[in-house]
Amino acid sequence: MELVPRDPEWETRVKSSFAAQRFMKHLGAELVHLSPGAVDLELRMRPELTQQHGFFHAGTTSSIADSAAGYAALSLFAVGVGVLTSEYKINLLNPARQAVLIARGRVVKPGRTLTIAKADVYGLQDDEQVHVATGLFTLMSVAGVKD
Amino acid sequence: MELVPRDPEWETRVKSSFAAQRFMKHLGAELVHLSPGAVDLELRMRPELTQQHGFFHAGTTSSIADSAAGYAALSLFAVGVGVLTSEYKINLLNPARQAVLIARGRVVKPGRTLTIAKADVYGLQDDEQVHVATGLFTLMSVAGVKD
Amino acid sequence: MELVPRDPEWETRVKSSFAAQRFMKHLGAELVHLSPGAVDLELRMRPELTQQHGFFHAGTTSSIADSAAGYAALSLFAVGVGVLTSEYKINLLNPARQAVLIARGRVVKPGRTLTIAKADVYGLQDDEQVHVATGLFTLMSVAGVKD
Amino acid sequence: MELVPRDPEWETRVKSSFAAQRFMKHLGAELVHLSPGAVDLELRMRPELTQQHGFFHAGTTSSIADSAAGYAALSLFAVGVGVLTSEYKINLLNPARQAVLIARGRVVKPGRTLTIAKADVYGLQDDEQVHVATGLFTLMSVAGVKD
Repeated sequence: MELVPRDPEWETRVKSSFAAQRFMKHLGAELVHLSPGAVDLELRMRPELTQQHGFFHAGTTSSIADSAAGYAALSLFAVGVGVLTSEYKINLLNPARQAVLIARGRVVKPGRTLTIAKADVYGLQDDEQVHVATGLFTLMSVAGVKD
Repeated sequence: MELVPRDPEWETRVKSSFAAQRFMKHLGAELVHLSPGAVDLELRMRPELTQQHGFFHAGTTSSIADSAAGYAALSLFAVGVGVLTSEYKINLLNPARQAVLIARGRVVKPGRTLTIAKADVYGLQDDEQVHVATGLFTLMSVAGVKD
Repeated sequence: MELVPRDPEWETRVKSSFAAQRFMKHLGAELVHLSPGAVDLELRMRPELTQQHGFFHAGTTSSIADSAAGYAALSLFAVGVGVLTSEYKINLLNPARQAVLIARGRVVKPGRTLTIAKADVYGLQDDEQVHVATGLFTLMSVAGVKD
Repeated sequence: MELVPRDPEWETRVKSSFAAQRFMKHLGAELVHLSPGAVDLELRMRPELTQQHGFFHAGTTSSIADSAAGYAALSLFAVGVGVLTSEYKINLLNPARQAVLIARGRVVKPGRTLTIAKADVYGLQDDEQVHVATGLFTLMSVAGVKD
């Protein structure tokens, strides 16, 4: 399936919308890859992101997975159509205690109203890569919402 | 179903584990209710918690839902058994743009290995209460993990 | 939240659509309760519905949960709008080996495009009731589909 | 990740457990591929499997996805350990109205207690293949259950 953006300004739009997500800045997440239907976000370990055992909190892992999936979807939306997460499900596969997390959001099925995406999160430490989470996301197109 | 804690120190344990979640402090979440199998967390709106439209980011809403469900489960665990989120699913029902969010985590089915909990998140503004999210969580008992 | 049907013929429509679900007949499911936003389905144990241990197969439990949630949603839809399941998540809480299953579908949040519903499935045996499953469902309104 | 069966009789065990699932026979599902951590099931369209629009019922699609995921997991289990579905989530991506459905279950992360698997369901018609569903499954190892 080839995914084709409908908004000629899709790259600018995704980047500026991501930059406007104050919460992503609060976490320290960075957008490190962008192509049609695909977005990767990276997050470095900091004590502020941990749960009681010193791992990344499931909420931080999920948050970057959600933004990666949402922006993968937005990259394919028409001009003037915004994105909202309708629902998602995530499985935490391994403890997320690596130096860096990378969330890879990929569109599985684009749609006019609903777009289905998946996101896989990997923990990177030294030369090792651990699969820490996998999720499925339903993103909704919202007309008249600036994104 | 009456839920009975197995650890006589359950209240202290849940409170000190919550206090050790650096991420909850980074968000600004507070534990406002605790009873066996039930935990409520509260979170005040701050710009650092928002997505691109100024609503609470789905990640913040989910994060407090996850912690509320996880601590509802932990309140019933035996001494020396820690809690990890195995997986969850959440539906975002309404835009979360209220002054305060409250996440109510409730155990649905306690278990030796797996505990199933739900969490509902409400947005409070003036005298109104909006149901902003509902989720189902699977929490895992982890022996030998300090919580 | 009071749920008000928009189609004056809602009862007839739900009943005749349910009767047209050949798969529900193949399982042996019956519609035993119908009110606005609420549908209960009942299913008697038969060997054809079991998995390898003689319990109801997770697929049968989920199938009646899905139909109960879908018809709970359809009961609130406008004239000429059909229903499709967009996605769902279900937790199997206890082995389903009772004489009868009852799936209770309830609308959590009605909407023009998406309706969120939950379904709880109980196993009934003698005087006992066991909570065998709980799920969350997203139902989609489909214009121009006869239901 | 190479997946290695722990039970030398894994093939026999999966096949005979599948043959014992009365519900799979009631649907008409067949096991068409089996390798370590991977199971494919096939299901031909029959009127008894449809919902009110004549498509495969979401329950049939999910049921074969669930069995495919479950047997993919069981193929890796130790001798004498049975499998139960703990929970799953599935997105219905396209109407399932093709002549044949094929559900491909694949283990994502094997584990002693919990195994995470995914399943993708495709509809086959003439020379076309449509992605009709994708799901994530948590399977539980159950000691002392014959499978």
